[in-house]
Amino acid sequence: MSVENRLTARELAERAHLAARKLARSSSQERAQAVRAAAEAIVLRRKDLEAANAADMAKARTDLPAAMLDRLRLDGARIDALASSLREVAALPDPVGEVVEAFTRPNGLRVERVRAPLGVILMIYESRPNVTAEAAALCLRSGNAALLRGGSEALESNSVLVDCFEDEAVQLVPPERAILDELLQLEDKIDLCIPRGGPGLIRFISERSRVPVIKHYQGVCHLYVAADADVEMAKELLLNGKTQRPGVCNALECLLVDSRIAGTALPVLLRGLRAEGVELRCDSRALQIAARADVGAIAAGPDDFGREFLDLQIAVAVVDGPDAAIAHIARYGSRHTESICTRDRTLADRFLREVDASCVLWNASSRFNDGGELGLGAEIGISTSKLHAYGPMGLRELTCTRFVVRGEGQVRR
Amino acid sequence: MSVENRLTARELAERAHLAARKLARSSSQERAQAVRAAAEAIVLRRKDLEAANAADMAKARTDLPAAMLDRLRLDGARIDALASSLREVAALPDPVGEVVEAFTRPNGLRVERVRAPLGVILMIYESRPNVTAEAAALCLRSGNAALLRGGSEALESNSVLVDCFEDEAVQLVPPERAILDELLQLEDKIDLCIPRGGPGLIRFISERSRVPVIKHYQGVCHLYVAADADVEMAKELLLNGKTQRPGVCNALECLLVDSRIAGTALPVLLRGLRAEGVELRCDSRALQIAARADVGAIAAGPDDFGREFLDLQIAVAVVDGPDAAIAHIARYGSRHTESICTRDRTLADRFLREVDASCVLWNASSRFNDGGELGLGAEIGISTSKLHAYGPMGLRELTCTRFVVRGEGQVRR
Repeated sequence: MSVENRLTARELAERAHLAARKLARSSSQERAQAVRAAAEAIVLRRKDLEAANAADMAKARTDLPAAMLDRLRLDGARIDALASSLREVAALPDPVGEVVEAFTRPNGLRVERVRAPLGVILMIYESRPNVTAEAAALCLRSGNAALLRGGSEALESNSVLVDCFEDEAVQLVPPERAILDELLQLEDKIDLCIPRGGPGLIRFISERSRVPVIKHYQGVCHLYVAADADVEMAKELLLNGKTQRPGVCNALECLLVDSRIAGTALPVLLRGLRAEGVELRCDSRALQIAARADVGAIAAGPDDFGREFLDLQIAVAVVDGPDAAIAHIARYGSRHTESICTRDRTLADRFLREVDASCVLWNASSRFNDGGELGLGAEIGISTSKLHAYGPMGLRELTCTRFVVRGEGQVRR
Repeated sequence: MSVENRLTARELAERAHLAARKLARSSSQERAQAVRAAAEAIVLRRKDLEAANAADMAKARTDLPAAMLDRLRLDGARIDALASSLREVAALPDPVGEVVEAFTRPNGLRVERVRAPLGVILMIYESRPNVTAEAAALCLRSGNAALLRGGSEALESNSVLVDCFEDEAVQLVPPERAILDELLQLEDKIDLCIPRGGPGLIRFISERSRVPVIKHYQGVCHLYVAADADVEMAKELLLNGKTQRPGVCNALECLLVDSRIAGTALPVLLRGLRAEGVELRCDSRALQIAARADVGAIAAGPDDFGREFLDLQIAVAVVDGPDAAIAHIARYGSRHTESICTRDRTLADRFLREVDASCVLWNASSRFNDGGELGLGAEIGISTSKLHAYGPMGLRELTCTRFVVRGEGQVRR
């Protein structure tokens, strides 16, 4: 349904609610077919989509930063990639109806926990139009109706994409604040709200929403290089985490180096970063070591720890052992992705247990906290909320489990 | 910690947050031992507890209804039962650290999903003091700090019970609205809020809370007697569901009988209910059949459908087939517990699939929607929220799962 219809918030939600009830009765084949049909429509309507995207880009060009513009752009190759990612979603195993647990009670009752769709999912996100199509596909495949609230800068592109889903279960929400405000009150019609974005958006939603929220908050991700770390490995992990794709949430934003190794390791690590054009924002101890080693660095500002740069910049601090590293992460991290480089299994196990984040990694790049990389297939995002799903959310995380009980007349004594 | 300390909301939450971080480092044995110690303390302090409860009862006697008074009362037998239920919680398998899934990726990364405590849990509930001790035990056993906000009528009893947990991880929240209001804003310190109660409480919480909420809402539970049902079995299920313990959330509140069987089945069913002293509140068609069969019944009022009577009263309606039954439940049910009596497996499967409730039952009493009866062990309550846990919540449902990844220096290409 395109945005031109101008439904009220309640009408949008009612329509989604009815569509969700209909989806709950549909077969897995029907839902997969609906997603495949959308993929075909996207390919067939390539010209419309390019024109709509050109209009969005033309409007945006003056005020958006280059990184945002790049995320907004849909060219031929990206349209093909989008269609094929939809076909992949259609081919994923269906979580709905999956029996998670099954057992027979001593009284003969047969108990199952069975996956069912959540119902209506409200997604709130910014710029990238591919999120519109991918979120719609994931919701539809898992039997959920989707209310998609993308950024105003992608409105034309999003309208065409949503039209490619010929289904009342996929609706675009006009990017007006009043409508969002009202939707967030409709807890009887909307089952889940997923905001994907920075502190402002997340705060706005969590202050207002009566609908349950799973936050996809920013990633302020750390790498802690322990005293016994293999410095070459640490450098690889660091460069991959920071520079392979700096604009994403699982990129590194802060390097913590143990003070016992900092004198020798930091020059190697910082030189590696500089060679890739990364700006170094160092605490006083790291700055001294950088100066001594003649590596260009600047003093970290008061907000640079706990900051998601999303760019070729990194905060650097020297820490006195694992306690200090874990405390630093507890204070500044965003519970997204945290990693340690060490040869010591006992220390690694402690870090993996005590650091609170959706994904904790030992001797592996932070960039692996991703649905595809962790074997979930396509993901709708990475949850930093602990409830329901913590970490990448795939199809399964868009369902709930219900108890289904079969008896022969059993009563309770 | 007893309530007399008079901490502010933020102090209570900070203390809980610190206690939760400490608990995350504790061993399973330590947490089990803390729960066993509380059970012993409850037995040792029996006299204090009886005196405190007598004070609560004396204050309450004038204004509370008899059913509430009975729930408030703690006598010797109930104290023993409480201590032994705590010992059972201590003996339950520990969910923390449980590896839910484990696999190796093609690049050699070893990925696990591991259970971890949620952190700080705020429980909000009424009257029954045993909830205080049981919720505290379940939270502690699963590595969570508990903020317990019971009703003011049980304040003295709750204070003694909380003192039996010699642990900063278990704190009583004074029953003042301003403190609760403030706690519900502290999303950085409190990880989950569980309100257990009726529409007023649930609305109050969901309007205000920035902390994620799992609702334990009332049960408006139906039994649908299909056209081909075994009427004797239906009668057993009905009487058990309505009369075995009418004051609980999984008791039946509404009987739906298919119009094709109503003429013969309803007189049998209604007579059975009358013999147990149940008041019948019938829609017009059921009322006619009752009159013809000479069974005492009254006309249902406008609010009797969708009402949680919690007493020897039931709403009765005649429905035209499964579609009407399912639509009635979608309109009036509370997504708690819904049941069907039929011999037809195809119809049963449709009901079990299409009716949206935390537990759906075929030829079994609604009273089985209970953590103990469904094999979960002790429960903290029954969630009517779909996210995270839908249905009875045991120890496992008080945890989240995190991704733990171990590598040998893998980076993303």
